[in-house]
Amino acid sequence: MEPIEKFREILMKQKAYEYVLRVIGWDSNTEAPRGAFTRRAEMLGVISGELFQLQTSKEYQEVVYGLAKRLDELDETTKREIKKAKKNLDKIIKIPQDEFVEYNKLINLSQIVWEDAKKTNDFKSFQGNLEKIVEFIKKFISYYEIDDDPYNVLLDEYEDGMSMKEYDYFFEVLKKDLVPFVKDVLNSGKELNDDFITDFYPKEKQKEFADYLIDVMDFNRDNGLMKESVHPFTWNTHSTDVRFTTRYLENFMFSSIFAAIHELGHATYEQQIAPKWDNTYLNGGTSMGIHESQSRFYENIIGRSKEFWEAHYPKLLEIFPTQLKNVSLDDFYKGVNKVEASFVRVEADELTYSLHIMIRYEIEKMLISGEVEVKDLPEIWNKKMVEYLGIKPKDDVEGVLQDVHWSAGMFGYFPTYALGSAYSAQFYYAMKKEIDINKIVKSNEIKKINSWLKNKIHQYGGSKTPKELLLEVTGEEFNPKYYIQFLKEKYGKLYL
Amino acid sequence: MEPIEKFREILMKQKAYEYVLRVIGWDSNTEAPRGAFTRRAEMLGVISGELFQLQTSKEYQEVVYGLAKRLDELDETTKREIKKAKKNLDKIIKIPQDEFVEYNKLINLSQIVWEDAKKTNDFKSFQGNLEKIVEFIKKFISYYEIDDDPYNVLLDEYEDGMSMKEYDYFFEVLKKDLVPFVKDVLNSGKELNDDFITDFYPKEKQKEFADYLIDVMDFNRDNGLMKESVHPFTWNTHSTDVRFTTRYLENFMFSSIFAAIHELGHATYEQQIAPKWDNTYLNGGTSMGIHESQSRFYENIIGRSKEFWEAHYPKLLEIFPTQLKNVSLDDFYKGVNKVEASFVRVEADELTYSLHIMIRYEIEKMLISGEVEVKDLPEIWNKKMVEYLGIKPKDDVEGVLQDVHWSAGMFGYFPTYALGSAYSAQFYYAMKKEIDINKIVKSNEIKKINSWLKNKIHQYGGSKTPKELLLEVTGEEFNPKYYIQFLKEKYGKLYL
Repeated sequence: MEPIEKFREILMKQKAYEYVLRVIGWDSNTEAPRGAFTRRAEMLGVISGELFQLQTSKEYQEVVYGLAKRLDELDETTKREIKKAKKNLDKIIKIPQDEFVEYNKLINLSQIVWEDAKKTNDFKSFQGNLEKIVEFIKKFISYYEIDDDPYNVLLDEYEDGMSMKEYDYFFEVLKKDLVPFVKDVLNSGKELNDDFITDFYPKEKQKEFADYLIDVMDFNRDNGLMKESVHPFTWNTHSTDVRFTTRYLENFMFSSIFAAIHELGHATYEQQIAPKWDNTYLNGGTSMGIHESQSRFYENIIGRSKEFWEAHYPKLLEIFPTQLKNVSLDDFYKGVNKVEASFVRVEADELTYSLHIMIRYEIEKMLISGEVEVKDLPEIWNKKMVEYLGIKPKDDVEGVLQDVHWSAGMFGYFPTYALGSAYSAQFYYAMKKEIDINKIVKSNEIKKINSWLKNKIHQYGGSKTPKELLLEVTGEEFNPKYYIQFLKEKYGKLYL
Repeated sequence: MEPIEKFREILMKQKAYEYVLRVIGWDSNTEAPRGAFTRRAEMLGVISGELFQLQTSKEYQEVVYGLAKRLDELDETTKREIKKAKKNLDKIIKIPQDEFVEYNKLINLSQIVWEDAKKTNDFKSFQGNLEKIVEFIKKFISYYEIDDDPYNVLLDEYEDGMSMKEYDYFFEVLKKDLVPFVKDVLNSGKELNDDFITDFYPKEKQKEFADYLIDVMDFNRDNGLMKESVHPFTWNTHSTDVRFTTRYLENFMFSSIFAAIHELGHATYEQQIAPKWDNTYLNGGTSMGIHESQSRFYENIIGRSKEFWEAHYPKLLEIFPTQLKNVSLDDFYKGVNKVEASFVRVEADELTYSLHIMIRYEIEKMLISGEVEVKDLPEIWNKKMVEYLGIKPKDDVEGVLQDVHWSAGMFGYFPTYALGSAYSAQFYYAMKKEIDINKIVKSNEIKKINSWLKNKIHQYGGSKTPKELLLEVTGEEFNPKYYIQFLKEKYGKLYL
């Protein structure tokens, strides 16, 4: 058999294993009962072990490293696949299988430990697991023998080509330009009223509006679905099975609306990827940052625009006639854009959001470098909240325990959230040159925007890098000035 | 490595593959979007292929056949495991892999052909597929080279140790004692009124009552959940992850209630199996018949008893005050026990249910022996309906096309439904000698019944055969007289 055919055959098997693990992940995250997880960890340990063997077998190594030496003979797509496959292989073959299996078990169990800790406001009960996770991650990185800072290795995993150098610059810009602007806004003396949002909005009614939004965003219902979970997320295996969740807080209706629009951004990206990438190494969205740029684009740039609510506020009024009786369209628009220093990242407004990320970035950097220890996290967290947002969490539930990511071993992931927001502004100004976004949103024709994004970004899946996409779509490299510009234009008008 | 350790190792792997396939099956049957299935079939094809290789590998054969020769040296549990493993191996290795794959394709395809035939009332369009299925099944049985009647081989697959000899006797008793009794009831001139049940009962409210039933039955919510599906079913991977579904017909409230109670019977069985069987070949419920005896026990013997509704009718009234305004407890009790000759098995009442099964048993027997051909089924079906129930289906949708089983190649399965009902009565009289069932049900202490069943039946999982359980729990072999006795006592009072 030719090496390329052999590569395709092994890849197909790897995909099948990844597929079943992903489907089970969906179940774990949306409905599996508590009791399921011990046995599940055991069973998935076996399957992950099988996958690990496929991903590290001598045969696969020979094929990938063999092809990597003949890149010039390969077509463009295969060349990219082999490069990517080699990059992953270089790391994974250095991890002993038993440690890999043990780590996966730890991660599965840590979900529950974290959930319990969050329920009982007990960081200490989670600390041991988190310490083990960090230890594993550092050990794995040391196995890679990559000549770079360990945190750079993690950053690159979630955003191809990004390192502390770029992120430091990005966050410096935020610190220099955004932090003072946020202070101006918070000290402007002007307050946008969103009191109405804490009225009682029954879950079933919120669900009705979330369901309406599915069609507004032109999501394909044959190829996906919406469900409920504590922490909203998007999930996919391929373009014809893309699912997302939202959550319903009966005294905070914005949560379900903006989580749904946000996730619909991720979901639309995945639904619009060309199926031809399914069986290749280049399937799925290209990076976390680009993914987040799509969700933030839908959530903030579209979903928090005046035009969006001009089109859809009547529907919301229809569903909540009593609760919104005294709320005008303008009141509502201002309400969804209210800026305030708040504790919980996922409920943060558009303007202060990236400051929450900055805190996590700085903490991760210190944690991976060994400058701080897991046990110190609650204190550091609270200190930074005071420094950047001027408020101090009353407990760890409002603080360091709020996010699932670290319990799942995802270090280096958070920065892509802020990066995605910044990308989205850069894409926005590029799109604006070609189509009349305001008019399209106001006339409820979002499929035209989907179409633009499909054409420029989505269809390519993982076949273009984030850096290539930025350059091709916007004509320049990543530049945080657009993000600052967008926020200042919008919130200047609203507050200053 | 010792053969037993090797056996355990391979078994553990098989279990992990079966586990992931089962979890994905749950997803397929409850929520996966239409678009998921093409890619899913491709991915699961790979995983099923891996499992098939594990189940038939030379290494596994050597271990199982090697141990089978040394049964005397093994402990009781391992001995049973090896016997069971050998029995399955004997069959599976004799089927050529290409025929196995072809048969699975045929089965997959036949689901859709059957669905379409049912939709369009066109048996002829399904006939060809069914003929091929029957042919395959007969061929596979011939490969097994088992010295027994082919239909006995099928019967034994679903109920260990059962053959035509036992079933013939069972159905003869029904014919002799039950058929005339049913005729008496139907000709009694007495009619129980259940008109109220076709009033409008909103789905959300029905869900509320189904949810209430979960606690009534003392189902462990940490180790399972209830969901919705078109066809109710119970699903499990191990005792701490047991799920079931019900369905909501807004103009037929009984459907959600009795489907929920029925499935809670299956689910309680699975939840109460001792975890020590998880990693053995003896996990899960022991047979289809014993399983059905538990669901039927909960659904009919408990769920349709006067005492049950004495305890729970107030709650139902609270949820449906308008719809049930003029319905007394006695009216309601009679309504849930209304007997009538009907066409569709799944909607049949407790008394006539097993006559529907008898028809299928007699037909399967003739079909496998070659006495009748597939093309004759509609006619034979209708003739037997007239003979046993006195009514003739107006078309094949009400007749031979109603059940999914044959299109899935499940011949020999139906008889276990009637058998389970009969088992449940035999267990009932044994239980009655030891605990006051009526009092327990009336005072809403069903966990005492669960406890009895756990102690006598559930905990053993697959480690005891149906025959052993019957003998140990009731002191005698299977005896259909208890079933007849139960039905005559109950329906005699209601009708005669």
